[in-house]
Formats: sequence, structure tokens, C-alpha cells
Amino acid sequence: MCEHHQSMTVRALSVPNAKAPFEPTTIERRELRPDDVLIDIQYCGICHSDIHNAHNDFGRGVFPMVPGHEIAGVVAAVGCEVTKFAVGDRVGVGCFVDSCGECDFCRSGEEQFCRKGVVVVFNSTGYDGELTYGGYSQKIVVKDKFVVRIPDGLEMNVASPLLCAGITTYSPLKHWNAGPGKKVAVLGMGGLGHLAVQFAHKMGAEVTILSHSPNKKSEAHGFGASHYYVTTDLATFTELAGQYDLILNTVSANFNVDALLSILKVDGALVHLGLPNKPEQYNVFSLFAGRRIITASNVGGIRETQEMLDFSAENGITPMIEVIRADQVDEAYERVMNSDVRYRFVIDMATL
Amino acid sequence: MCEHHQSMTVRALSVPNAKAPFEPTTIERRELRPDDVLIDIQYCGICHSDIHNAHNDFGRGVFPMVPGHEIAGVVAAVGCEVTKFAVGDRVGVGCFVDSCGECDFCRSGEEQFCRKGVVVVFNSTGYDGELTYGGYSQKIVVKDKFVVRIPDGLEMNVASPLLCAGITTYSPLKHWNAGPGKKVAVLGMGGLGHLAVQFAHKMGAEVTILSHSPNKKSEAHGFGASHYYVTTDLATFTELAGQYDLILNTVSANFNVDALLSILKVDGALVHLGLPNKPEQYNVFSLFAGRRIITASNVGGIRETQEMLDFSAENGITPMIEVIRADQVDEAYERVMNSDVRYRFVIDMATL
Repeated sequence: MCEHHQSMTVRALSVPNAKAPFEPTTIERRELRPDDVLIDIQYCGICHSDIHNAHNDFGRGVFPMVPGHEIAGVVAAVGCEVTKFAVGDRVGVGCFVDSCGECDFCRSGEEQFCRKGVVVVFNSTGYDGELTYGGYSQKIVVKDKFVVRIPDGLEMNVASPLLCAGITTYSPLKHWNAGPGKKVAVLGMGGLGHLAVQFAHKMGAEVTILSHSPNKKSEAHGFGASHYYVTTDLATFTELAGQYDLILNTVSANFNVDALLSILKVDGALVHLGLPNKPEQYNVFSLFAGRRIITASNVGGIRETQEMLDFSAENGITPMIEVIRADQVDEAYERVMNSDVRYRFVIDMATL
Repeated sequence: MCEHHQSMTVRALSVPNAKAPFEPTTIERRELRPDDVLIDIQYCGICHSDIHNAHNDFGRGVFPMVPGHEIAGVVAAVGCEVTKFAVGDRVGVGCFVDSCGECDFCRSGEEQFCRKGVVVVFNSTGYDGELTYGGYSQKIVVKDKFVVRIPDGLEMNVASPLLCAGITTYSPLKHWNAGPGKKVAVLGMGGLGHLAVQFAHKMGAEVTILSHSPNKKSEAHGFGASHYYVTTDLATFTELAGQYDLILNTVSANFNVDALLSILKVDGALVHLGLPNKPEQYNVFSLFAGRRIITASNVGGIRETQEMLDFSAENGITPMIEVIRADQVDEAYERVMNSDVRYRFVIDMATL
């Protein structure tokens, strides 16, 4: 028997204008469509790209804005045609809430490349023309195809950052074949980096952390890093010349690309995960000598997100988080910008 | 029966100092070792990297210098242990004349990545400590492993530019799987580009030439290009957005990398073959959207060079050349720098 679910007014945290403080507000969530899932949000992570959008750094901000794309919660209701989820299921939602479903990329599970253009969970326009509002909110309605299952082995608050930071680091490690016999370097050990090292280690690769700070060394080893180098000493790059199959650059600031390329093996790849504001520079000679690669990666598809969650549960991948109240988000943003977080903030939505 | 071959004095064209005019001179060629081949050089191509070295653009020039690494000739004598070649064989020598032979790259036929460091045919130091002199010369002595066979179907003068320009374009097309169903763009139709289009077309790819000039359109179609666009109109890049699997950038000047990345498909690759003097710039967003790749390629291994020559003979790949006399090399250099050559100069060594 299929119930009808009306649209509803729910509490949320919104930014009225670029860089303004957050304020509690209410937003509308749509009436459930046949393939929709209504989720009671328990936790939502804070990602640097939430901050970029709330500050309108990319110039595409629509305000008031409700950020949040690391959503963990429990199914509260399902549309008539939903068979994959039932009320009470532990579920997650990441960056995307819709895609065309028909193009080659959608069919192959790489919705992030959808030819029609993927609908992002917030500050995006749905195929229905409605502005999307994200996870800093009490509830959300999402098409079932874009909902993933949180395995029993993962705590809800810990699962939350995996929905973006997790898949963002897992996907390029898989794409570039991190595994036994491979040497992976991770530049920066923050929200992304502290997960990258855990994934790469559990995939069987030998992992090196490259950090601007000497202070995270013991934690790095705890996450599974075999080596730790401080990047402020340029001699480090000479010492490591030609050693790595893969570098994940998790830093959002500009960094010396030629120095990073110099520590890659032949056919090694430097993968950008962060988005620096200014263009990067490289000398073609740095690529030439070893057919080296510069590339980037942007989250991953829904199927791979589920795979990542399952892998995390099986292998004990654990984001290190600081749980905050809804009235601490402004302060948390400040601290993220000052790199003063180990390693990810998660908002407890019960405090909203 | 194994003859002894003394070292010998041979005629050559040398540059006494950076940017000085060429002058006829004599150089010594070594006594044949058991695995050496003595070659009577008939033709030697002129490559832009000869000019870079003769002008000491990279600051590594040792003078007097005898450039030349597109060598076509006939075997005049062989060392005692040479079984692969006999006197009278039509042979070629490209960029390399020695490598360690023992590392993983040498064993897999990718000598260009030799861990000990490959010995380049000129302006390099051999493992014996001797400076190498290139192909602007009457004869050369080369280890048999670094000599390739010129198939009967190729004229000697036409084969000459294949030894560098040919393998430089063939290798990345193979590495990045150019073939049926793939769309390849070639930026610049000069010495490299006019071969890239022929190779990609004969491999079965659909080829587009991107040129700064409208003047080469009919020749491009003659070489097998399906499409021809002039790059001075930036609207071209909007029109071609997301279309290509592969771009070979054969231009040695800096070019708008973001514009090139914008016309790549998801997972498409931009391959630099030219070496601009200044660093290139890119916006990480240009890579992000489609997991796009920036890379470069530097010639290829000896086995692949032979494969490329055989492919050229079988498929009628024909460098378009202008044969010059030994006393015209200075003038030819000027014309190469002014892009005034269709498409490759070849020195007739009988005129030396």
C-alpha cells in the first residue's frame, strides 16, 4: 500500500548572502515522487567546497543557500515505487541528487560525467527547475538512485564525511590502480588527505604523507603511512626523485607542480583533488622525461560511492571527526579556513 | 671471418660555437667494436631540436657540435659479433645510440626511459666517456642494437625524418590508443604534425588539424585529416568542446592549455610533443570536469621505431621533404625558425 506524502516545511541552516553568518530558517521539501526517499538527517559533514559556495568564491552562488553534501540519516518514508529502501534504513547522500540516467556515463555508473549535467545537492537547479538545498537541514527528499546504504559497521557521524571526502579520495586511487607494489604519495593531510592515506594503505599500497607541517607525523603513521616528509624543505623532492606511481594532491592552495612531477616514476600520475584559486604552472620538460601525467578527479559515481562505504566498513576506515552543534558552523568555517581541524567537522542535526 | 676496422677520420658539418654558422670539418669515428655497425650516411634530417642544441637554448651545449639524429644510410662494415646487419643493408639511426640494456625499461624496449640514462646521438657523453657526434656527417659508428632497418618500400631520403619526427608522433598515438572510433586532434601541421595526421589516419582514427594558418587546409586533407580549424578564432574551441579523445600538441610555442583541455572528452589526453621555452599554465577546473590528462611524449624505443618504419612502408606514410645541400643548412635553420618549410629539411650527405 502506497501512502501519499505531502510537501513539508523543515528546519535548516542558511546563509542569507555571501559570507554572511548562518541563521536558522525553514525550507520546503517536495512531496514525495514515486521514486523518492525522505531522509531524517542525523549528521552532515562540513566540506571546504561548502565554504567556497557559501562565500561565493566561484561566483555561482544563489542565496539564501543551504549547503551540505555529506549527509547521513535514516529513511523516514519512501515513494510508491521505491523497493531498495525501507523506513528505518541507515542511508547517505553525497554530492549528486539527479542525472539524466540515460547517457553512457550514467549507464556505466559515472554520473559525475552525465552528459545532460548532474544536479548537485545544493546551490544547483534540479531538472524540475527548483533550486536545491543541501544537508544542513532536518530532512531531505532524494531520488532513490542517489541514496546509498550506510553499512552497519560504520557509525552514522563517522560515515558522513565519507560521502564526499571519502569518495573524492577513493575514486582516483581505484582509477589509477593503487594497490600492492604501488607507491602513493598524499600531499596534505587534512580532511581529504587523512582518508586518502587510510584507503591507499588498506588497498595495499605503500603510502607517503607530504605535509607542510611536522606536527602530524605520528597520526600519519597511525593512519597507515609508511613515510612522512615535510615539504617546506625542497631537498625532500630531490631525495624522493622518481619514486611514486601516484600522487594525490589534496591541497587547495597552489603548489610547485614541477617539484611534484619530479618525484613521479615513468607513467606516474599527479591527481589534483583540491581547487586552487590561481592557475597552476608546469614546465613541459617535467612531463617529457617520464611520460608523466597531470590530471584531476572530482568525487565519483553512486555505485562507486556504495563500494567505498562497504570497503570502509570492511577495512575499518575511520574519518577522524569533531562533532559540532548547529550554532557552531560559523566558527567551524573559520577553523577549516585556518586548517585548524583534525580532520573533519560534522554537524549534529539534532541540535538544529 | 671477422675483419679489424680501424678508427677513421670522416667529414662532418659542425657548429664551432652556439649560434655560429656551420662549417665543414673532420671528426673521428671509433674503431669498430664487436657489436658496432659502420654506416655510410646518405641523408640526415633537420629537426627543431638540432637547432635548439646548436643555439645552446638548453644551456647544455658542448662545442664544436655535430648535430643530426635522423640518419638514413647503408651499412659499410660490421663488427665481429654483428649478425643482424650485413654490408649493403639500408639502415637508420634515431636519437639514441646506447643505453644500459639491463634495466626494466631497456628490457621492455623503452630505452628512452633507461635508468642509467640513455646516450643521445649527439651532444651527449657515451658510456665510454667520449662526446657523441651526430648525423651531419659522412659516416657514423653505432652499436647494432640502436640501428633499425629501413624497409624497401621507403625511399632513403623520405625515411630520414621518420627516425625522429616519425617515432615522436607514432609513439603517443599508440600509447594513447588512437584507432577506429577515436577522434584525434593535431595542433600544428609542421614537421611533426604532418606525420601525426598521416599516422593517426592510417591507424583508423578521425583526425582534425588545428592550425594557426588557413593555408594548409588542402594539404591537411591530402594527409588524411577529416577536419581543419584555424586556432586564431577562439570560437573554434567552443564549437569543438568535449569532442576529442586525444590531442597531440606539436607546437613548440606556448599555447592556451585550458582551451585545448576544453575540447577533450572525459578521460581525454593532451600530449605535448613540442618544448616551449616558458612554463605552461592550466586551471585545475579544466582537468576536473572530465578527469582530463596533460602529459608529454619523448620519441620512443628502438623496437617501436622499427615498428613505425614498417607501418610507414606498409601504409604509404610519406614525410614531405625538401632535400638540401650541406652548404644550405644555415639557411634551412632560419627557415625552420620562421616555419617556412613544408615540412622537413633533409641534408643530402653526398654534397658534404
